[in-house]
Amino acid sequence: MSAGKIYGVGLGPGDPDLMSVRADRLLRNARHVAFFRKPGRSGQARKIVNGMIPDGAVEFPMEYPVTTEIPLDDPRYNELLLAFYKDCAAHLKTLSEQGEDVVVLCEGDPFFYGSFMHLYSRLRDKAEVEVVPAITGMSGAWTATGDPITWGDDVLTVLVGTLPEKTLAERMAQTDALVVMKIGRNIDKVKRALKTAGLYDRAWIVEFAQMPNQRVCRLSENCEGITPYFSIIIVHGQGRRP
Amino acid sequence: MSAGKIYGVGLGPGDPDLMSVRADRLLRNARHVAFFRKPGRSGQARKIVNGMIPDGAVEFPMEYPVTTEIPLDDPRYNELLLAFYKDCAAHLKTLSEQGEDVVVLCEGDPFFYGSFMHLYSRLRDKAEVEVVPAITGMSGAWTATGDPITWGDDVLTVLVGTLPEKTLAERMAQTDALVVMKIGRNIDKVKRALKTAGLYDRAWIVEFAQMPNQRVCRLSENCEGITPYFSIIIVHGQGRRP
Repeated sequence: MSAGKIYGVGLGPGDPDLMSVRADRLLRNARHVAFFRKPGRSGQARKIVNGMIPDGAVEFPMEYPVTTEIPLDDPRYNELLLAFYKDCAAHLKTLSEQGEDVVVLCEGDPFFYGSFMHLYSRLRDKAEVEVVPAITGMSGAWTATGDPITWGDDVLTVLVGTLPEKTLAERMAQTDALVVMKIGRNIDKVKRALKTAGLYDRAWIVEFAQMPNQRVCRLSENCEGITPYFSIIIVHGQGRRP
Repeated sequence: MSAGKIYGVGLGPGDPDLMSVRADRLLRNARHVAFFRKPGRSGQARKIVNGMIPDGAVEFPMEYPVTTEIPLDDPRYNELLLAFYKDCAAHLKTLSEQGEDVVVLCEGDPFFYGSFMHLYSRLRDKAEVEVVPAITGMSGAWTATGDPITWGDDVLTVLVGTLPEKTLAERMAQTDALVVMKIGRNIDKVKRALKTAGLYDRAWIVEFAQMPNQRVCRLSENCEGITPYFSIIIVHGQGRRP
């Protein structure tokens, strides 16, 4: 019996029509499907593939032991996550040793701030792992704004909202084009940093990019009802163009 | 008769299996296909879709009047390109007015340093234009290296090799993760900037990412035979991870 393969499959921004042909094929033929989710939730990645997974496929929800209940700098946070990733990786490895292929669902592109990376680093030397790249959430977001993100010599900077406000403002002030990910509860800090950097009036917020409930709004306008949790902030470059 | 639609279709890094399901469907049903190419070449975008376009589809190669024969800062360069984009946009608009849908082939993601943007900005108010996002060349490249590009709070900076050496080195020194696009004849300058910034030993070069002739190499090793023209440079972030 030969060992099974573990696929880290990027699902893209959320529209099944924007998945890659390879991701689509892997999903429609999957026998084992693993995905992260918060306890008590159905999970965003799992929702995206609703209706695509064959009847009878075995699902393996990997439930985060902690999300925001413990601060990032508490040592217990790291310990809990370490044990969690270790357990998940062990389960996937066992399936692979039993000759089963496993598809691990990844929102966006797996190697771009993805949770799958924590399994990948634990499995890459112990099993056959293939990563299927995907359209990033940020590509989905800038396409939704209807304006190109970078022209000519534009510098693009991608920041996460979890950075300190001073760092955010400094980096924002130096770039031509900007993407801010992981906004969530950092939205007010990110807004202040955009103002300090003089970019606030050029900033857009895109919620649920490329999904049926997509919302696109200039940050300076009244974006009523837009929640920051599934949102990305975009500032377009204005570089050289003939 | 209703007007036709102009589709700017991202093809992704170059493997047809990594195109989106939507791009695949649009290509296989296309009646008019437009693409950029250098005079006398078959064109990289056109090559990627070989065998996918229906027999009888009308092809419209858009041949750049100038690539590197005239320096970027020569006013003739801009004039020639302006006239070229204007002519191409006019042709696509005419097809659309005749009720024809047109698929414009775009390497990578159309809104990320893409040539299609120059047609889009001229057509968006005069015709119905839909942009189909795609996997970026840089996602294809970092996936090919087998290591994630960004972890935790990592800052990602995307630079183009056409920037001055001093700017390149300064930006490189400030970032956690790095992508350098548009390398071509700038390769020696980019290498010097990486050395100045202390990133040279961590830099990878990926040629023809996700294509059959893909090459992945550490820049500091002997990357014999790798030409910079279809290459992307990658420096991985080393951020927080449990």
